Amino acid sequence: MTKTSGTPLNAQTCQLICDAVTDRFDKQVSFLADFVRIPSLRFEEAPAQDFIAAALQDRGYEVDEWQVRLSELEPLPGFGPIHGDFSRARTVVGTHRPGVTHGRSLILQGHLDVVPTGPVDMWTHPPFEPKIIDGWMYGRGAGDMKSGTVAAIFALDALRHAGFEPAARIHVQSVIEEESTGLGALSTLQRGYRADLAVLPEPSGHTVNRAQIGVLWFRIAVKGRPTHVAVAQEGSNAIMAAHDVIRALQKLEADWNARAAQDPVYGDVPHPLNFNPGQIAGGDWASSVPAWCNVDCRIGVLPGQDLAAAKSEIEACVSAASRDHPFLSNNPPEVIWNGFQAEGYVLGPEAEPGLAAMRRSHAAVFGKGAELAERKMTALTDTRFYGLYYGIPAFCYGPQAENIHGFDERVNLDSFRRTTEVLALFIADWCGLNHMSGG
Amino acid sequence: MTKTSGTPLNAQTCQLICDAVTDRFDKQVSFLADFVRIPSLRFEEAPAQDFIAAALQDRGYEVDEWQVRLSELEPLPGFGPIHGDFSRARTVVGTHRPGVTHGRSLILQGHLDVVPTGPVDMWTHPPFEPKIIDGWMYGRGAGDMKSGTVAAIFALDALRHAGFEPAARIHVQSVIEEESTGLGALSTLQRGYRADLAVLPEPSGHTVNRAQIGVLWFRIAVKGRPTHVAVAQEGSNAIMAAHDVIRALQKLEADWNARAAQDPVYGDVPHPLNFNPGQIAGGDWASSVPAWCNVDCRIGVLPGQDLAAAKSEIEACVSAASRDHPFLSNNPPEVIWNGFQAEGYVLGPEAEPGLAAMRRSHAAVFGKGAELAERKMTALTDTRFYGLYYGIPAFCYGPQAENIHGFDERVNLDSFRRTTEVLALFIADWCGLNHMSGG
Repeated sequence: MTKTSGTPLNAQTCQLICDAVTDRFDKQVSFLADFVRIPSLRFEEAPAQDFIAAALQDRGYEVDEWQVRLSELEPLPGFGPIHGDFSRARTVVGTHRPGVTHGRSLILQGHLDVVPTGPVDMWTHPPFEPKIIDGWMYGRGAGDMKSGTVAAIFALDALRHAGFEPAARIHVQSVIEEESTGLGALSTLQRGYRADLAVLPEPSGHTVNRAQIGVLWFRIAVKGRPTHVAVAQEGSNAIMAAHDVIRALQKLEADWNARAAQDPVYGDVPHPLNFNPGQIAGGDWASSVPAWCNVDCRIGVLPGQDLAAAKSEIEACVSAASRDHPFLSNNPPEVIWNGFQAEGYVLGPEAEPGLAAMRRSHAAVFGKGAELAERKMTALTDTRFYGLYYGIPAFCYGPQAENIHGFDERVNLDSFRRTTEVLALFIADWCGLNHMSGG
Repeated sequence: MTKTSGTPLNAQTCQLICDAVTDRFDKQVSFLADFVRIPSLRFEEAPAQDFIAAALQDRGYEVDEWQVRLSELEPLPGFGPIHGDFSRARTVVGTHRPGVTHGRSLILQGHLDVVPTGPVDMWTHPPFEPKIIDGWMYGRGAGDMKSGTVAAIFALDALRHAGFEPAARIHVQSVIEEESTGLGALSTLQRGYRADLAVLPEPSGHTVNRAQIGVLWFRIAVKGRPTHVAVAQEGSNAIMAAHDVIRALQKLEADWNARAAQDPVYGDVPHPLNFNPGQIAGGDWASSVPAWCNVDCRIGVLPGQDLAAAKSEIEACVSAASRDHPFLSNNPPEVIWNGFQAEGYVLGPEAEPGLAAMRRSHAAVFGKGAELAERKMTALTDTRFYGLYYGIPAFCYGPQAENIHGFDERVNLDSFRRTTEVLALFIADWCGLNHMSGG
């Protein structure tokens, strides 16, 4: 086997690579279905990591799998607290090291944790039994973001099948916790993985995220005074009190969005900072005034907004809402930080070389003049860890998906194929190619 | 052994009986503690029923224990639907049959189901480890109503130890489900148990309930449109929508209480009909707009208020609250009837002989001139089944308890002893006594 460095990415090479994607696309779709079939819900991601580790091993990558230890991550910037059983938390990294390096190194990161399905009977098809209908694959995680991870793996396959290898180090990183803390991404950085650029094939609909907000997760733990409902007025209903606190936080949300209208980045985005009371549990008995109510919340923060200050504002808001309440005034709710402690992130000029390469690859697939749209996200991705704390510019580019976090989540299969083509061309452009000849 | 009928209840006999209570009171307190120690939460009452069955067996009563079958109860008036595992539901009845009958027959009914503890860390002492402090016994169920059941059993013991037996048939009935449907009480009636009067030693604080309200239990099952919180405004938050429905039901509660001000029985009771959202659960993820929220509710109805009409009003209220809601208007919440379907109950003249006997017994213990107060309850008891559907007048008389359904539930031990004395004298009065001589 010999290797030739610096193969130029001409039209013919592009065609060769895209053909290699097309040739293997049936296999790729079936691989995605197998991946979606594994219900990689939070704290239950291990079998899905095994699936990816095996796929990377089969392809001959150097595979590093390890258990994530909270104690090692806790001191690092961007850490978010975990409430749950983290004992089976693992990260998988497959590394490609070229014979001859002359390109720029690259991290391709996918997360395989998926958000809960919600009531399964509200899905048209069971969420972990992927179905293909009219060119879309349905299933929890099909969009967010198993298709992206699979596109990255098959993009690399396509290069190999077209007779090339990337001419720089590449890490294919499979992580967990993207939807709740980002600790999976953080674990790769703690382990020492670095590159010149990180691309995350999140379902961006063929756009790149120029900016993303930060996110805080917290639980409001409200107490009540339980009594027999016969004397309900002597008690304090924790469910109703929790709602008063939610209403106060909705006012804080409005204040923050009013401030956001002046933001240099998000000023033109209507209502960028969403507050969501996403989960609630309280009380034990219809006929007892409920003694407790927990509300799990998420709120967005602007890039550059100081997290400690934002947290203080939230705590002050909860405290103010309690002050006039006959029971809460002496029994203020607790604010428990139980997940994301994520700052916003805006791409600067350091990302320009990567973006330029992505623009070229996108145009090569979608046609000359096809513009690569940029988005300001009202959500977050793991890119922040790379960009904010390790000097590695990071952005997302991935397929078109719908209903992510909702029922009947789906990814468009044509877009899935094109994403694979774009990523393959992007890798070729960014990392360079060595020609592999049999020998 | 010979029996003498018609022993008169003179002052000397009263003293003899009360002394017999006092003599055995230490044993009685320790028996109550053992009973409270059994956590007879809903659907988990079987060991507590075993405990009572054994106590009745030891005392030589004819004991009837049976499994409660829903199919047999469903056609009966007062039935409330069960959502849960009813497979271990049992009723225990211990029957005393005198050698010579010359008094009136009596049902003494206690329920041993207890309401949930709520968060155990909000109790000063663990709820199922009874503690005696300053003359009160603390523990879940100590007040509501294990002390009452124990008082009835030990009242009968005291008569025997004083050398008597009740001169009429008595059924000591230990039932479940008082706190949720009343199906335990209904099961004794379905089985055929009847008497001239039923007394339930609920923790009435030495009063009798002249009237009690009815109660409906229902679940409001609210749906939402889940989305990623990044686009929260495209979704519909089921937790917030559920709250809108709760607010509408609070208005219905206000309407009903305004109507209640005209009620011949409850007109002088401020706010007799309490609505309580007692338990809530919704959503699966802080960062997803929640797709569902269930609220378990209880609402009171007036005696004589038609249950079918009340249920229609509730359904209409939920439906009206949904009509202007962008999502609920096309996805109206479901109202699920999942417990009490209980009518109110007011004692009429048919209860007068029983009440007169109770007045005499109460005065015998608390001193001449001690008035037996009557209450109009804003809650319900099992008495309704006996009185409304089987022509058996039924009322409550029992000890003083505090914080029932709350934390640190407790019963006053002096009141517990006096209740036992009152019940013993009441049995002697109502049923008559046969004198038992050794032989």
